[in-house]
Amino acid sequence: MQATIITIGDEILIGQIVDTNSVWMSHELNQIGVNVYEIISISDDREHILSAFAKAKQQSDIVLVTGGLGPTKDDITKKTICEFFDDHLEMNQEVLDHVTMLFKEYVKAPMVDMNKDQALVPSKVQVIFNQYGTAPGMWIEDEGTVFVSMPGVPFEMKALMTDGVIPKILEIGNLPFIHHRTILTTGQGESTIATRLEHWENNLPSHIKLAYLPSLGMVRLRLSSRGMDKDFILQSVDDQIKQLYSIIEDIIVSESNDESLIHAVVQLLKDNNKTVATAESCTGGKIASLITEIPGASQVFMGSTVTYATQSKVDMLGVDASIINKYSVVSEQVALEMAIKAQLKFKSDYAVATTGNAGPTQGDSDAPVGTVYIGIATPEKAYALHFMMGNHRERVVQKSVNKVLELLQKELIALC
Amino acid sequence: MQATIITIGDEILIGQIVDTNSVWMSHELNQIGVNVYEIISISDDREHILSAFAKAKQQSDIVLVTGGLGPTKDDITKKTICEFFDDHLEMNQEVLDHVTMLFKEYVKAPMVDMNKDQALVPSKVQVIFNQYGTAPGMWIEDEGTVFVSMPGVPFEMKALMTDGVIPKILEIGNLPFIHHRTILTTGQGESTIATRLEHWENNLPSHIKLAYLPSLGMVRLRLSSRGMDKDFILQSVDDQIKQLYSIIEDIIVSESNDESLIHAVVQLLKDNNKTVATAESCTGGKIASLITEIPGASQVFMGSTVTYATQSKVDMLGVDASIINKYSVVSEQVALEMAIKAQLKFKSDYAVATTGNAGPTQGDSDAPVGTVYIGIATPEKAYALHFMMGNHRERVVQKSVNKVLELLQKELIALC
Repeated sequence: MQATIITIGDEILIGQIVDTNSVWMSHELNQIGVNVYEIISISDDREHILSAFAKAKQQSDIVLVTGGLGPTKDDITKKTICEFFDDHLEMNQEVLDHVTMLFKEYVKAPMVDMNKDQALVPSKVQVIFNQYGTAPGMWIEDEGTVFVSMPGVPFEMKALMTDGVIPKILEIGNLPFIHHRTILTTGQGESTIATRLEHWENNLPSHIKLAYLPSLGMVRLRLSSRGMDKDFILQSVDDQIKQLYSIIEDIIVSESNDESLIHAVVQLLKDNNKTVATAESCTGGKIASLITEIPGASQVFMGSTVTYATQSKVDMLGVDASIINKYSVVSEQVALEMAIKAQLKFKSDYAVATTGNAGPTQGDSDAPVGTVYIGIATPEKAYALHFMMGNHRERVVQKSVNKVLELLQKELIALC
Repeated sequence: MQATIITIGDEILIGQIVDTNSVWMSHELNQIGVNVYEIISISDDREHILSAFAKAKQQSDIVLVTGGLGPTKDDITKKTICEFFDDHLEMNQEVLDHVTMLFKEYVKAPMVDMNKDQALVPSKVQVIFNQYGTAPGMWIEDEGTVFVSMPGVPFEMKALMTDGVIPKILEIGNLPFIHHRTILTTGQGESTIATRLEHWENNLPSHIKLAYLPSLGMVRLRLSSRGMDKDFILQSVDDQIKQLYSIIEDIIVSESNDESLIHAVVQLLKDNNKTVATAESCTGGKIASLITEIPGASQVFMGSTVTYATQSKVDMLGVDASIINKYSVVSEQVALEMAIKAQLKFKSDYAVATTGNAGPTQGDSDAPVGTVYIGIATPEKAYALHFMMGNHRERVVQKSVNKVLELLQKELIALC
């Protein structure tokens, strides 16, 4: 089963917002065996929508459309759906009741005609209930292709997908099994790895595809396969992964199996009933913010200090000022102290710390741009390591975050 | 001038990474008067690349292509470019010298044939120099359409665009002026605003386009226009903005003119030589992390405590435990204390604090999911406000972050 994702709205095309919806939808479709053939972003323009619909219909079984469902004049998706499917709008009482309820409960402002119009839907569609907003999801089948229209608000779309669209796609049935396994490596570049893997790669069975995904000091190797025989797919990919381990065991950090590193770390903490705290300088709260994005993080996350200014490392964490004066604020000793003091102050089992210079200009120390020290405190030991993360601010921060999570994961795995 | 952006790589289509390149490129193109007609993500598949190239050629003057330029076998863009333009690969000595230098300087591993092959380029292309990586940018003109191929690594692509591609597009010349102004409002929904603006909207000149962009407690109103007469465009949009102010002045927070709120806040702090600190509970470090994303933030940002666990509010910030016991950890009094204590501990001019329950489950307090208290401390005063941010974790956190920035901006504007 092939899918096309269409996002409608000028805000993506003029560079005002990042499209995070498409990647989420792709991931969910992949999980249930639907292959995403193409993702396309177009403007709120009648002709462009019609031509994109026509192309998507030709090339796919499922078309997911987001955006353009607001009550205002610039939103024309619903009208254009009517035109494409030769349909007309009808008032849907159930949706109207829901919109009325939402206004009464949350908006506490009188409804205007424009709000009531949110309950107008094309007569041929099946409504998918949107508990979080006024624009309903709409499911319409046409000559073997399913079109689904959803609002572009991320959490409304996500709830509609999870509760309505995915179950309905599963009902269609006969979906293949899609399987990805991703191995995280560190320490060698993609060409070096490819050279080491040349013989193995040349002998990969044709139903298994290999991709190299280099990113900020790490290379991910992804094996993908799909087919109706789930056991065969699982077994044959597993066989290849075992071979992979035997060839490049020295550089494999972990298997990340489509879960991001942060999920793995939080899960390890939960499984082992351990807590963590962070003391962040150059990473500016990014590690804390990533951890707390995960529901239930409060079980394992004690807190963080972002001690951006040098003095705050003393005032907030209790880092000894003489250590800073002696070794400079960007140093192994300070990273170590930060981790140890964070562990102490937050009463956590583990603590991680970063201090460095991400650029673009020199900060409170003489350390060259790209210098980062990472401190790790565990129940048994504490240490700090030195890294050079390159000359680009974004890269320095992201590489540091990745490295911290990688080190923490290693410590947690060692614990098991 | 119309552009199409094509991103090549399965990682987007299987939902493994978010495409942040396209939005960045769109924004840059828009700035110089190039209209982005379509953004399309496709897989590393020969036929799909060829058909996307053919469609893009028909519909646009400029086609920006990213991805698929790595040294490994799964990267086939260069080969497919040769096929599409009926061309062949030739060794480029300048690129080879650069790749050799990069290996000597940074990789410190011997080069293999695969690395040398990075210097093979189609004979018809003009090479655009990639200072940060081994894959060169490639510019090729064909029957009036320019194709530009760039690596997908964000900072490599960005440097290629800024230093090479944008200047070359500007040389083609005769680009129109594209102008957007975005007004940030708060307190009313988009339908209420649209009702108030109905008469004005109906009388907008046809060369000015209005869009409503609702997002988490705020609605942005964007006016867009384009044309060759820059002065006329600027003037006529400005006239409409003035009318807009006169109609809905009560709900306008600021003009965000494509800058996000966070940029505006950091700029205000810099302009006034003031500093800020944050004490974050339910926002989990998101505010700190946003601030520190901006280069030069260290001038204005003193630091943050993420006091996720209740006890850490006492231990780290020095919030009086009796206040927590009396009023509960999610309360106006605790938010106020957190802000005051953060201001004191970080010795900052301003401090902001959040405490709340983002869900999905009850945390350390009895407050229902969605309850958030925001504390603000300024050089003159301190206060805390109560908000209900809805029943969805992502929404609660993001709305809280937005609200904090909005309140802080108001205080900073009042100062000027």
